[in-house]
Amino acid sequence: MILNLTEIAELLGRQSSETPGPRISGVKPLEFATERDVTYIAEAKFLPSFETSKAGAALVPQGMSLPGGRPFIQSTNPEADFARLTKFFYGYANRTYPAVSENCQAHPSAKIGERVSIDPFAVIGKDCIIGSGSSIGSHTVMGEGVVIGDDTTIFPNVTIYPGVKIGSRVIIHAGAVIGSDGFGYARDIDSAGVPVNVKKFHSGSVEIEDDVEIGALTAIDRALAGVTRICRGAKIDNLVQIAHNVTIGQGTVIASQVGIAGSSSVGSFGMVAGQVGVRDHVSVGNGVILATRVGIYRNVPDGSVMAGSIPAMPHKLFLRVQSLFKRLPEMLERIRNLERIVLQKSKDRL
Amino acid sequence: MILNLTEIAELLGRQSSETPGPRISGVKPLEFATERDVTYIAEAKFLPSFETSKAGAALVPQGMSLPGGRPFIQSTNPEADFARLTKFFYGYANRTYPAVSENCQAHPSAKIGERVSIDPFAVIGKDCIIGSGSSIGSHTVMGEGVVIGDDTTIFPNVTIYPGVKIGSRVIIHAGAVIGSDGFGYARDIDSAGVPVNVKKFHSGSVEIEDDVEIGALTAIDRALAGVTRICRGAKIDNLVQIAHNVTIGQGTVIASQVGIAGSSSVGSFGMVAGQVGVRDHVSVGNGVILATRVGIYRNVPDGSVMAGSIPAMPHKLFLRVQSLFKRLPEMLERIRNLERIVLQKSKDRL
Amino acid sequence: MILNLTEIAELLGRQSSETPGPRISGVKPLEFATERDVTYIAEAKFLPSFETSKAGAALVPQGMSLPGGRPFIQSTNPEADFARLTKFFYGYANRTYPAVSENCQAHPSAKIGERVSIDPFAVIGKDCIIGSGSSIGSHTVMGEGVVIGDDTTIFPNVTIYPGVKIGSRVIIHAGAVIGSDGFGYARDIDSAGVPVNVKKFHSGSVEIEDDVEIGALTAIDRALAGVTRICRGAKIDNLVQIAHNVTIGQGTVIASQVGIAGSSSVGSFGMVAGQVGVRDHVSVGNGVILATRVGIYRNVPDGSVMAGSIPAMPHKLFLRVQSLFKRLPEMLERIRNLERIVLQKSKDRL
Repeated sequence: MILNLTEIAELLGRQSSETPGPRISGVKPLEFATERDVTYIAEAKFLPSFETSKAGAALVPQGMSLPGGRPFIQSTNPEADFARLTKFFYGYANRTYPAVSENCQAHPSAKIGERVSIDPFAVIGKDCIIGSGSSIGSHTVMGEGVVIGDDTTIFPNVTIYPGVKIGSRVIIHAGAVIGSDGFGYARDIDSAGVPVNVKKFHSGSVEIEDDVEIGALTAIDRALAGVTRICRGAKIDNLVQIAHNVTIGQGTVIASQVGIAGSSSVGSFGMVAGQVGVRDHVSVGNGVILATRVGIYRNVPDGSVMAGSIPAMPHKLFLRVQSLFKRLPEMLERIRNLERIVLQKSKDRL
Repeated sequence: MILNLTEIAELLGRQSSETPGPRISGVKPLEFATERDVTYIAEAKFLPSFETSKAGAALVPQGMSLPGGRPFIQSTNPEADFARLTKFFYGYANRTYPAVSENCQAHPSAKIGERVSIDPFAVIGKDCIIGSGSSIGSHTVMGEGVVIGDDTTIFPNVTIYPGVKIGSRVIIHAGAVIGSDGFGYARDIDSAGVPVNVKKFHSGSVEIEDDVEIGALTAIDRALAGVTRICRGAKIDNLVQIAHNVTIGQGTVIASQVGIAGSSSVGSFGMVAGQVGVRDHVSVGNGVILATRVGIYRNVPDGSVMAGSIPAMPHKLFLRVQSLFKRLPEMLERIRNLERIVLQKSKDRL
Repeated sequence: MILNLTEIAELLGRQSSETPGPRISGVKPLEFATERDVTYIAEAKFLPSFETSKAGAALVPQGMSLPGGRPFIQSTNPEADFARLTKFFYGYANRTYPAVSENCQAHPSAKIGERVSIDPFAVIGKDCIIGSGSSIGSHTVMGEGVVIGDDTTIFPNVTIYPGVKIGSRVIIHAGAVIGSDGFGYARDIDSAGVPVNVKKFHSGSVEIEDDVEIGALTAIDRALAGVTRICRGAKIDNLVQIAHNVTIGQGTVIASQVGIAGSSSVGSFGMVAGQVGVRDHVSVGNGVILATRVGIYRNVPDGSVMAGSIPAMPHKLFLRVQSLFKRLPEMLERIRNLERIVLQKSKDRL
């Protein structure tokens, strides 16, 4: 697909600095752009990098023009327009097979919309509904009664347990598991006096609203009763654990290897960095930022920025620091003793 | 399925407060229960929540009755009886297909018991044995010589490597991998003088005993020699790593994203909270509780409760705290200097 | 397979202490070895364990012989020779099916080498290339244009997105996902004034060089542009996250549940222990060791050994220690105050 810069600008509802401008066949960040690519410059401080870049044109902030008369498109949000162009050039519409494979197995009761792709060996259960324009990858399994909206893309080897509801324009990456049982047991003693864990079978479900993206190998458990909910526009990375009865708020972004334990919630428009853990029954407010690797054990108010993960240091230094963690109570006690003596002495003198 | 309360009580070997009592079609925790559900009250402190709940009846501790004459069943363990009812109403027996799919591929040498379900595209290898009443999900692969007991449920997209043994009444959730190679290499230098990692192919196996549950996307590696063992009644959550030659003791519960490194063991009836890490060659005793996100680097005696993960704090405060971690050795030195001067002075005075 | 010790020694290019020596049918570490196994002794300190072992023979360092006249093979690297023998006795060549299943689905344009195994229900996309001697597990999906070298083993249920390149003698364990989209969004405001995350579709790829091993359920994301690269001989364990545009250097070993965030790199011949996290845009040098569970937030110079994860301690002690973390700034202030008073006093005296 090749367009000139004017056509690119039209796609975005913007204006280009040149007519028709250079011919463009792709969109890349500065360090990767060739003369056939459009790139973006979010702030003036990136202009020097642009000068050494081969980029054919750039999306720039309103009011900025480029040195040397190089062609540009002004935008109120160059990075967002860049992202829109990645969809135009590299979106899934360009890749997926346009048909229902003979080798898939769809239950006769399933309702399948128009322009749906179902790849080889996918399994579509009883009473499933797949909206128009959606695509289902090979080896993906949809259990009984799963509902999927329009223009949703599900990659291969995904497992969707019975009864899960998934919205429109959702993307689910390979290997994800949606709707597995929550992790809940009651401890009891069996007739021989031995402790046993009695499983709570989970009768709730999972609902994934419109415009959500779920990363590869992420697990989202169904609710004990009620619903585990991923709200509209939330984005979840790879290898994330979302436990039973969790709610992830609208537009919230959750990075890789995060774990959110049972019955907790994260509010809207938040950012959760990689490897964060949130314990069960905790409420994280709206607009919260949780820094990399923190552990959340209590409710977090709206708008907070929370951190708490020790950064790495040279191993020898850490061996000393580490031994002092356990001695912190002793250190405080020694400070108190000193204060007692020194302040006493001060008194003595007076 | 609809029963009256007397029938529910009979199922549990208990007595109901009313005959026949309300008609019940489900079982839910307090906040989700409707007038057709039975719920449970573990302690008197939950009675106020019950009063505002619509629950049709409740499992209550021995000696407790309900205000307003609402119907109840007394139990020595209301939560465990609640869990038993979830199996009755929502157990897998109610869901699975009752047949071996024409579209699965089972090796002719495989021995398949009675009432076994094998879903479309499952692959059953040479010399596999599947016990009566077990079910195998779509796209699940059983390598050569895998043995599965009775009434075991394996969800879709599970991979079981050759030679793995799985007991009866085991549940394995979607995407789990059982029996992959342990992570072990010998460092060597090749003929060009370049370091290389020489792989140790693992000839051991994995044994999963009766009544174990394995979460979605959990990996359990085979032993280098001998066996990686998950003992009877242990329960493992999603995205957990169990390395080669590990033993998890009877009835132990392991939450999501935990990692247990090679040749370590966790004793019986323990609880391991989410995102815990246990390093290699460590022995964790019986009845141990490991709190959320701790790192275990040494043996842990029976009955210990171990913690050690910094909780999140406001980012600005943490920036100051963090900078002081590295200065702990200096702080201790300054305390010592003060002590030297102050105690010297005290001596001087005497 | 049964050999005598002389034949084993010949396989390794070594000499045995006896001709023909005991008959050997396997290779096991000391605690598991029987009289039909050869084992290895890396250092003299393991000799007492050998004396109580039943091992039929042992690989020993140059210059060492065994007590009681037991047979041995001297080696410049006994552990590496042990590893080589595990491949001889237990390597995949002994296990895989020798054919292309009738039940796989390979696109007619795919080029498939000699001695290739493709197991049931594998899906080979358009224009894929599979080198000679490679094997593809059941339910593994190779997207359009995937290229795989010679003698590579891909286990079941692996998803390889379009365009990924994989070298020779690579091993990819079950459930791994290679080439999923990187996690990148531009924040924007929609026409209703609501924040939205605009997805960046990733046009880059993943390249996995020769002799790499990838663990079960590990995710490796494709680059935004350019390549996410796993260099020759690197070994990656289970449940690891490798984000977009990351480079993992030659021969580096990465243990389970590690996460390497976007655009970061780890140098050559390093060791990354379990549950480590490396934030985005960070460069970790060559020959670096990152200890278990550390968080890396800044560049790490070549040859560093970095640590920083609090070890577990008894819960009661930790409650006190934990409360003092937040009081570290106060403790330092109290030390300073004491110093001010005490040093002032010292001055007074002079």
